[in-house]
Amino acid sequence: MKNTYFTPGPAELYPTFAHHLQTAMDEQIGSISHRSKQFRDIYKFTDEQLRILLNIPATHGIFFTGSASEVWERVLFNCVEHESFHLVNGSFSRKFYDYAHSLHKYAHVLEKPFGEGFDYSDIDVPEYAELVCLTHNETSSGVQMRPADMHKLKRKYPKKLFVVDMVSSAPYPNLDFNLIDSAFFSVQKAFGMPAGLGVWIANQTCLAKAERIQKYESITTGAHHTLPVLWKHYQTFETPATPNVLFIYLLGKIAEDFNRIGIDTIRKQTEEKAKMLYKFLDDSKEFQPFVTEERHRSQTVIVATTKNPAEVLAATKQAGLILGSGYGSFKDTQMRIANFPAVSIEQVQNLINQLKK
Amino acid sequence: MKNTYFTPGPAELYPTFAHHLQTAMDEQIGSISHRSKQFRDIYKFTDEQLRILLNIPATHGIFFTGSASEVWERVLFNCVEHESFHLVNGSFSRKFYDYAHSLHKYAHVLEKPFGEGFDYSDIDVPEYAELVCLTHNETSSGVQMRPADMHKLKRKYPKKLFVVDMVSSAPYPNLDFNLIDSAFFSVQKAFGMPAGLGVWIANQTCLAKAERIQKYESITTGAHHTLPVLWKHYQTFETPATPNVLFIYLLGKIAEDFNRIGIDTIRKQTEEKAKMLYKFLDDSKEFQPFVTEERHRSQTVIVATTKNPAEVLAATKQAGLILGSGYGSFKDTQMRIANFPAVSIEQVQNLINQLKK
Repeated sequence: MKNTYFTPGPAELYPTFAHHLQTAMDEQIGSISHRSKQFRDIYKFTDEQLRILLNIPATHGIFFTGSASEVWERVLFNCVEHESFHLVNGSFSRKFYDYAHSLHKYAHVLEKPFGEGFDYSDIDVPEYAELVCLTHNETSSGVQMRPADMHKLKRKYPKKLFVVDMVSSAPYPNLDFNLIDSAFFSVQKAFGMPAGLGVWIANQTCLAKAERIQKYESITTGAHHTLPVLWKHYQTFETPATPNVLFIYLLGKIAEDFNRIGIDTIRKQTEEKAKMLYKFLDDSKEFQPFVTEERHRSQTVIVATTKNPAEVLAATKQAGLILGSGYGSFKDTQMRIANFPAVSIEQVQNLINQLKK
Repeated sequence: MKNTYFTPGPAELYPTFAHHLQTAMDEQIGSISHRSKQFRDIYKFTDEQLRILLNIPATHGIFFTGSASEVWERVLFNCVEHESFHLVNGSFSRKFYDYAHSLHKYAHVLEKPFGEGFDYSDIDVPEYAELVCLTHNETSSGVQMRPADMHKLKRKYPKKLFVVDMVSSAPYPNLDFNLIDSAFFSVQKAFGMPAGLGVWIANQTCLAKAERIQKYESITTGAHHTLPVLWKHYQTFETPATPNVLFIYLLGKIAEDFNRIGIDTIRKQTEEKAKMLYKFLDDSKEFQPFVTEERHRSQTVIVATTKNPAEVLAATKQAGLILGSGYGSFKDTQMRIANFPAVSIEQVQNLINQLKK
């Protein structure tokens, strides 16, 4: 019997994944040239499906990298000359901030304790910060930031570039890409694919910034996957280096499946399942939701506090339900439940029934 | 009917690939955590199989990136403070050199015309070059450099770091890793997998260099996939970011298949098939081998000159045999035939028979 993965990524594969993979094998997608019309058609299709799904306007390009972590580096290289600004409230937003240090940028930070979230009113963006780095969903702590707050912030600071890490939530957050300059995610979370592909969305303002930085002798934008080179190849739906052709194909197919269901339905189902899980945690004596403020509670990665998470994880594993452990040192007090489109309402109910035991 | 891909990568999938992929799907490898024992066991297994296959000593670590092109950047960031030296004789060795410029390194170059190769006697390494960048197999022109020449060169310049791009030839070249500090390849060439994974081999001398560079305030080694961070995680067979778990598993399985056959046999079979192809080209009136010097002729990517390559490619495609076009502007006069382990002697003979028509 197969397990059901409620882990926050790598996670349960989307139910249609195996079928699309078989089609790809039958059509020998793993062997086709990345300079062929067949590949350009695949890139174009995936681009179209993602545009529909996430409502991405023509001002933004869609690019592929090895992972979302790589995008942390690329966006900092290409969109920051000197100063970036980071909202940090967990391990992944902190890594984004650490990357800025490693690239010798002057990185400003506003930090909140693990488990707390950011509201619009908390935030003053430093005067010289060029890029505001937001994390929609902190995978480590299960805290989300509301897109409405992000949009309001951008309206207050319209001249600054805004980038949103939506790694463990896309396509859930309804971002307004007329305000958000760049965003990125990886496919092993809510898209229900194996890891190995990052997706980077960036607009022409980001491109112009990268082109400006490239003129300076003292600053490098890196060599691999620079935005100007990605953008140039994107004009003909190509990539500078050989990309993960197979996964780009599969992502397009899954995005198409999502579009058939409709993004509104997917978002509603996500909220419905999250509500079931939080209600169970609120009512339970054994488990508590870690994030106290309801408006900051993640809809896609639910973190619970409990006395002996290792025991719970072992017991649910016996029943074929794989949960995520707490992040890092929170392993001893927390567990994480991913709520991605690949798991159905029935599967979530099944998990809740199991946890009640 | 399925096509047979003689393209220089992405290329024909190795015959066992589909079986291993099915096993991976049955075992839900696409969903397992990259922080689990199951993943560490996979990394360890792939590491062991590659060590046997390529005769890699304990001084060297084996790391995974998104692509081999990414490794161009990583090795330059981590192993060059100021100056690199590049042997350039085609589009890919040139890109490696261009990457050094983009990272604002002082890049020395020794260049040969397209189709010509390097011998030991040609080469003087500039005094202050820290890293010597060699390309074993120029995928664009079908020119190889003999490992014996590389080893001799390292013996002449023992204090300099040597890195070998073996993207479109590994596991064919018999590199002596007691001399070669670093090497890298991607899996969509001779390993017969879809694109989406780069493999970087680097020794402790490279690591020490990277650690030295990180101490300077004025130079960055990048943020993502820096050698010290890769190395640290490698100690427990982990990776800093979520890697392409599925492809790491598949690479281990295919390397194991190669080891069952034996690397000597694989190398002999490669040479036998290359001999058949070059003999056909030498004897033919319609086709000529592009590389004139026999010692520089690639064993894995054979480039042929012909009057109307587009017509030839269309005719062989009709017969289900997909050949590679000439690189870039050589499309009008050349074609490329990949000779990787995934194609058998019978398939090569079948191609030759077809080309004779």
